[in-house]
Amino acid sequence: MRTIFLSISFIAIGLMARAQGHPSIMLTQQHIDAVRKGINDYPVMASSYKTVKKDADKALKSDIEVPTPADGGGGVTHEKHKKNYQQALACGITYQVTKDERYAKYVRDLLLEYAKRYKTWGRHPRRKQEPGGKIFWQNLNDCVWQVYMIQAYDCVYNALSAADRKKIEDDLFAAVVKELSEVNGAIFNKVHNHGTWSVAAVGMTGYVCGKKEWVQAALHGSKLDDKGGFLAQLNQLFSPDGYYAEGPYYQRYAILPFMLFAKAIHQYDPKFGIYDFRESLLKKAVNTALQCTYTNKVFFPLNDAIKDKTYETEEMVYAVDIAYSDMQSGDDLLDIAQQQDRVIISDAGLKVAEAIAAGKTKPFAYKPIWINDGADGKGGGIGILRSGPNSDQLCVVMKAGTQGMGHGHFDRLNLLVYDNNGEVFSDYGAVRFLNVETKNGGNYTKENDTWGKQTVAHNTVVVDQQSHFNNNERTGEEHTPALVHFSANAQTQVVSAEEKNAYKGTSLWRTAILFTPEGADKALLIDVFAVNSDQPHQLDLPFWYQGHITDLPFPAEMNGKQLPALGNDNGYQHLWLNGTGNPSKGSPYITVLNNRRFYTTSFVADTATRVKLVSLGAQDPNLNLRNEKAFILSQPAATNHCFISITEPHGRNNTIAEVTTGANALVKKLVLTGATKDTVKFQFEYKKKMYTVSIRKNDPNSFLVIE
Amino acid sequence: MRTIFLSISFIAIGLMARAQGHPSIMLTQQHIDAVRKGINDYPVMASSYKTVKKDADKALKSDIEVPTPADGGGGVTHEKHKKNYQQALACGITYQVTKDERYAKYVRDLLLEYAKRYKTWGRHPRRKQEPGGKIFWQNLNDCVWQVYMIQAYDCVYNALSAADRKKIEDDLFAAVVKELSEVNGAIFNKVHNHGTWSVAAVGMTGYVCGKKEWVQAALHGSKLDDKGGFLAQLNQLFSPDGYYAEGPYYQRYAILPFMLFAKAIHQYDPKFGIYDFRESLLKKAVNTALQCTYTNKVFFPLNDAIKDKTYETEEMVYAVDIAYSDMQSGDDLLDIAQQQDRVIISDAGLKVAEAIAAGKTKPFAYKPIWINDGADGKGGGIGILRSGPNSDQLCVVMKAGTQGMGHGHFDRLNLLVYDNNGEVFSDYGAVRFLNVETKNGGNYTKENDTWGKQTVAHNTVVVDQQSHFNNNERTGEEHTPALVHFSANAQTQVVSAEEKNAYKGTSLWRTAILFTPEGADKALLIDVFAVNSDQPHQLDLPFWYQGHITDLPFPAEMNGKQLPALGNDNGYQHLWLNGTGNPSKGSPYITVLNNRRFYTTSFVADTATRVKLVSLGAQDPNLNLRNEKAFILSQPAATNHCFISITEPHGRNNTIAEVTTGANALVKKLVLTGATKDTVKFQFEYKKKMYTVSIRKNDPNSFLVIE
Repeated sequence: MRTIFLSISFIAIGLMARAQGHPSIMLTQQHIDAVRKGINDYPVMASSYKTVKKDADKALKSDIEVPTPADGGGGVTHEKHKKNYQQALACGITYQVTKDERYAKYVRDLLLEYAKRYKTWGRHPRRKQEPGGKIFWQNLNDCVWQVYMIQAYDCVYNALSAADRKKIEDDLFAAVVKELSEVNGAIFNKVHNHGTWSVAAVGMTGYVCGKKEWVQAALHGSKLDDKGGFLAQLNQLFSPDGYYAEGPYYQRYAILPFMLFAKAIHQYDPKFGIYDFRESLLKKAVNTALQCTYTNKVFFPLNDAIKDKTYETEEMVYAVDIAYSDMQSGDDLLDIAQQQDRVIISDAGLKVAEAIAAGKTKPFAYKPIWINDGADGKGGGIGILRSGPNSDQLCVVMKAGTQGMGHGHFDRLNLLVYDNNGEVFSDYGAVRFLNVETKNGGNYTKENDTWGKQTVAHNTVVVDQQSHFNNNERTGEEHTPALVHFSANAQTQVVSAEEKNAYKGTSLWRTAILFTPEGADKALLIDVFAVNSDQPHQLDLPFWYQGHITDLPFPAEMNGKQLPALGNDNGYQHLWLNGTGNPSKGSPYITVLNNRRFYTTSFVADTATRVKLVSLGAQDPNLNLRNEKAFILSQPAATNHCFISITEPHGRNNTIAEVTTGANALVKKLVLTGATKDTVKFQFEYKKKMYTVSIRKNDPNSFLVIE
Repeated sequence: MRTIFLSISFIAIGLMARAQGHPSIMLTQQHIDAVRKGINDYPVMASSYKTVKKDADKALKSDIEVPTPADGGGGVTHEKHKKNYQQALACGITYQVTKDERYAKYVRDLLLEYAKRYKTWGRHPRRKQEPGGKIFWQNLNDCVWQVYMIQAYDCVYNALSAADRKKIEDDLFAAVVKELSEVNGAIFNKVHNHGTWSVAAVGMTGYVCGKKEWVQAALHGSKLDDKGGFLAQLNQLFSPDGYYAEGPYYQRYAILPFMLFAKAIHQYDPKFGIYDFRESLLKKAVNTALQCTYTNKVFFPLNDAIKDKTYETEEMVYAVDIAYSDMQSGDDLLDIAQQQDRVIISDAGLKVAEAIAAGKTKPFAYKPIWINDGADGKGGGIGILRSGPNSDQLCVVMKAGTQGMGHGHFDRLNLLVYDNNGEVFSDYGAVRFLNVETKNGGNYTKENDTWGKQTVAHNTVVVDQQSHFNNNERTGEEHTPALVHFSANAQTQVVSAEEKNAYKGTSLWRTAILFTPEGADKALLIDVFAVNSDQPHQLDLPFWYQGHITDLPFPAEMNGKQLPALGNDNGYQHLWLNGTGNPSKGSPYITVLNNRRFYTTSFVADTATRVKLVSLGAQDPNLNLRNEKAFILSQPAATNHCFISITEPHGRNNTIAEVTTGANALVKKLVLTGATKDTVKFQFEYKKKMYTVSIRKNDPNSFLVIE
């Protein structure tokens, strides 16, 4: 579907210079003494090593068990094989640090046991796909297994006899490589994060075992045609800004094999210049991943995302350590490393620990940024606005990028809002209870399709209670929103984007602005969502808020004794309609109290405007949904309509000290004064001063004027 | 209603020895040099003083404003008068520390301005009651004002001219005292926390101004008959164990005037022996208040309680400082002081800071405890079971005490369960948005009566969808549950209590057990609730859980498209019936995932048992209710019935590291094997071992046998 726009051919495929000795990837023979010293000198090295050694010592105390694969994810054999590779690497590292032969022996015995048994196993009895995994139910897990095992092997290589090495390489690793690159060759050659794990496994194994052909296949695909393989993945899965097509949650996951394999390539073949590839793409990818987090460490839960995923995950520890030590990333990365509170016991981890100890840490440089999407950078992107220090930052994310492949949501121009270290307007993320066997085996539940992906689950306009692209992923992949404007200065930050294809004959144009009026403590979020169509439509704009509504100063009819579901499909079947407000008189607003701070959303309403108060949970027979709440600004039949709102964080409700301050919003009298298809004009009062806002879509020089 | 059981007469009312000079209460002339040194030496003194001084400096920079009282709580004049007394005390303390006359002058000018204006004011225009306050809308706030102002005055006393003192004492304080003790004499003489603030204000003013008669009235009531006044309050409002009749939330609030006035009495008249009164009642009261918190610092939200109230509140800082410095409390109190992270700039605060710096801190000694209730200790009580270290403690609270006066709930034998630093089965607390003007002026909302107080809002049995005592507070006050059994050893902790009057002709007997089987990581909560009646009744036992149900292994009919309210009154009108489960087959259980840990409640069911899945929020026109969730074990028509359940905390769902362990409960095959009115016998399996549990109500020597 995507074309490779960067010619691969000019990249010199250097001679594969076998790195000097073993270990050779994260830990190296040259630096092992320094690492050992670092463990003594630096607290974060010491504590990180303590964890590794504890794991290794646990392994030594247990018998070697290599069960015949039987169970699915979370099951006994699954967990055992997972533990085996984790403990093997822990023992490998501990062997390097201690030179205590017992750790090497454990890895040797374990690998010999696998070598003996691996070939006797058939296909996994509970395989998730065909041909599926061998050790695990899916090939992906087999790849991860090998990524760990080859590092463990590399660590104990020098302690093994030639005969043992031969047995392990021939009977086990060659067989695994065949399994990954041939039996599951489709995945190996796929431009997808599963493919990345696969090529990383095979490529790293090639380097460590001195098999040039495995490395070549890993880099260029099994046909060496660069239609698959690592370089194709780097070219196609990332945008020029280092944004990963499936979104931050998957970027976090995929970053490990990308960084680790790149590190291996760099170690064995520095002239290959992998770190410089596509203008230092991987360095950008690490920074971009971090820019896609909020100050509470959590990744923006765009697309199918588990919401409590933070940059403390192991993948990001690898990524941060390598990016800092090898890629000249800034000292603000040390802030992240300090919050991760661990490093990989490795050359890279040592550099991070040294730098932290030297006091080089700077606060992570979150900044307003437009991150382009699409392999060519022309697939829209993610607009991030940020105001305030990392300790109390107002942050707005507009999703205006590509569909995001199979894990994508129908959420064009979705807005996520954060403040005060938490969510204000949130995205549901994935409907999934990760690793909870009783919830559909820990997989996505069916509500992920019927709810999580649907447009109404997001803070963006729904037309006629239909989801974008009629829920058709393929159509979604064919179109991307377009960036209209992005700019940021001290007082004003703006992101504006347009989506013309989500609904036939209807264009969506949204502009989000962080504006700090003079004398204001915090910025205001000004949100302008223009919908233009040739026909009248029902338009719904949900605000999925966190917290509790404390002020709703207009009449609302509440469903007190019977609660109806709001619709039949497209996610509406999961919504309870708690009540309907009529905000047509005066200057309507809704105030929410969230984590002791107030958020007042003032909005423009006309006589037709209704506010639907909804909560999630209808038609949820397996109790898979969280009971989130939203207010939906709704126009029953509009051809051209502009939703305008200003969300103002204000005041403080300290229930411990029993002090409430700033309980009233300062924004008042928000009025639309004019709109065409390409312009919007409105005014509001703040601290008794009137502000007039003009937005002109086609005037890049004075796109936004606030005066 | 209560009789004074402790004769007051034997207490020698010592001669009121005027303390040597000023200041004389929290700060004293003798120790001011030491306090000054402490601010230099001890970090917690330094940071606490910094806050005070910042407040004082802010005051110096602003004009003195003493507006004519006009507004209710939260309004402009209300907040100004509140700020005035806070800043006056801050200036008083800062004057003592710095001896900088500007701070004394600020207090003087402010008090003189009040002296000029106070008498010109009529009754407060927005008074909440008659006669009501003068400076504030309720007399209570006027009392608090005086408690602060008299301390401020005491601090600057020596800096004032005799003429200024006379003006302040005659024109202001005498008038305030008259206002409190005469105009609002009914409150002054009331045995109630409002009365305590009033007598503390008048009594402290008496000491500082040398007015013996004010002190006497404060101690013994205005008629000096000990029907009101401080001693009557001490006698009647606390149980012998130091439990305050209205519950922990109000205990926390009332503790300040109790401790502060006691401190003043002790300073001026140490021979009075106020600290020894009722066998060191106040020392016990501070410990009891702290025993009524969980390890997350929050007070058990019994009765009308704001749920996020912690022991970090100013009142508890005073209480902890005075209890540690003056009352020989243990060094574990320093743990609390450290978590409060502040001390009062005072002699007492200095002692705390010294002790912390000397490394004397021990972990706060939470322990399983029965705390008796009622002035005579015969009004039932609160049973608290605790298992595990403070860092991860399983805690169970049984409320089996008195009604708790006007703020009491109809919640006999209610159970609160905590684990892993959070709530597992929770109490709603009060329906109130403290200090949020738009929510009924920050007062209790009407749902506090229709929901918060109702029995079904609690984890206890509801008979025929009626609340205890038919919601009649007075009847509730007439009866108390009886303690049946309390004991605690390393393996087993038990609290058992009985309530015979909540429902006519029906007795409720509940036994909560924390039992740690051999080889278990955590204790199990065994909960046995026997209901015996002469007629068949509908019995509901709600479990208000936090978290998300992840396993419900029996058929349940869910209301997917329409949600009905469960009832019409007694709180049931606020419940949505999400679905009804039929757990009659097999060994039923419900698993909840809460803060990454699983909680499985196994329970005994028969063919009639139903599980009602409910959520809160019906008939809530003003959006005042949080949408909490419960599963209700329900018997449609039972004469004698015993609810038996075992709640087991287990496993870990780490979504960051993507590891789930111990997802399956180990308790199995819970079966009732026999029950009479006075005995219950059942068995269950844990880690493949069978346990038989026998409970015999009338056999104190072998009340509980687990074998």
